[in-house]
Amino acid sequence: MLNETILHHRRGIGSGLAFVVSGPSGAGKNSVIDRVMQDLPGLSYSVSYTTRPPRPHEVPGRDYHFISHDEFERLITAGELVEHVQYLGDYYGTGQAQIKEVFAHGEDVILNIDVNGAKTLREKGLLRFTVVYVFLATSSLTVLANRLRARGTENEQEIEARLAVATRELAAIPMFDYLVINDELDQAVEELAGIVTAERARIIP
Amino acid sequence: MLNETILHHRRGIGSGLAFVVSGPSGAGKNSVIDRVMQDLPGLSYSVSYTTRPPRPHEVPGRDYHFISHDEFERLITAGELVEHVQYLGDYYGTGQAQIKEVFAHGEDVILNIDVNGAKTLREKGLLRFTVVYVFLATSSLTVLANRLRARGTENEQEIEARLAVATRELAAIPMFDYLVINDELDQAVEELAGIVTAERARIIP
Repeated sequence: MLNETILHHRRGIGSGLAFVVSGPSGAGKNSVIDRVMQDLPGLSYSVSYTTRPPRPHEVPGRDYHFISHDEFERLITAGELVEHVQYLGDYYGTGQAQIKEVFAHGEDVILNIDVNGAKTLREKGLLRFTVVYVFLATSSLTVLANRLRARGTENEQEIEARLAVATRELAAIPMFDYLVINDELDQAVEELAGIVTAERARIIP
Repeated sequence: MLNETILHHRRGIGSGLAFVVSGPSGAGKNSVIDRVMQDLPGLSYSVSYTTRPPRPHEVPGRDYHFISHDEFERLITAGELVEHVQYLGDYYGTGQAQIKEVFAHGEDVILNIDVNGAKTLREKGLLRFTVVYVFLATSSLTVLANRLRARGTENEQEIEARLAVATRELAAIPMFDYLVINDELDQAVEELAGIVTAERARIIP
């Protein structure tokens, strides 16, 4: 009896936790996610589908599954996506097969999902597992604008379009559980890692 | 407008958060709390009152305010304590003046409170600020027994009494928000620090 474990009172690793990370384009979601996955055990990234072309340095199958419009619409029709959105003319979506595969391996899943996609998930409650909603942003849109310009992968007109979308996206913050500020990468990594660690230590009611 | 901060959406540091850390005697609450306060900014410890004598290495005013039975009962009568309990014949209690002082300095407060005291706080909801309840324990009572024996500050009879109390205390775990396991100090520090960081990043509804 003294030897009985008390670990079953908390969620622990691989209890079917999904961390949805959303936020404006350019806020640095991928950089923060990559670092947290290096720092914490038992966390797998579920790669999304998109119809937009790869950016320089993006690796198909690692950053996104880059597919055609026709292929994307086939996934929608087949019910393979837990959410999908259109953003500036392109489709983005999350496959449910990949999420189930991560859980089958006893790990938690981390998802990079568009703000509207995250809102859809939260409202429809499509997922049968526990979802933690994290909004990742810079402390102001000025910081975001500077970062988009420094990245240099979009022209000024595209940057203006992204900032306009970002302005609308900020209105969705109250629908999320946590707000991570990525003005400094190390600080943002500490915050997201803290959220994952805390949610795993949460007591099961 | 681009310069407008979005930080007001989350709690941040010094928003009146109280972290209550409870758990069996010998689980290492003080060691974990000390390390987390070194690692994270804006966190102050609220020193409790007790009528038990100081242990070797315990410093009055840092570990506890060591006071007499009479003095303790005067604090109860004056309504100065947010909770108090009796544990193995001695009084333990939390003063509300110290908590208010920490908040007045723009910091969050961390409290080491007996399991029954924490239950009282949660049930009565005496506090007008946000309280996060953390249960700190070893993964089994065997680990706890070994640690109590290694500490060598109690005789075998006192250790048996503490283990009997600990067994009852474990039943209270479902009333807490988080369970931190302190088999390894570094891991426990990471967990409690993660909880503080996450709760500060929580979005205000």
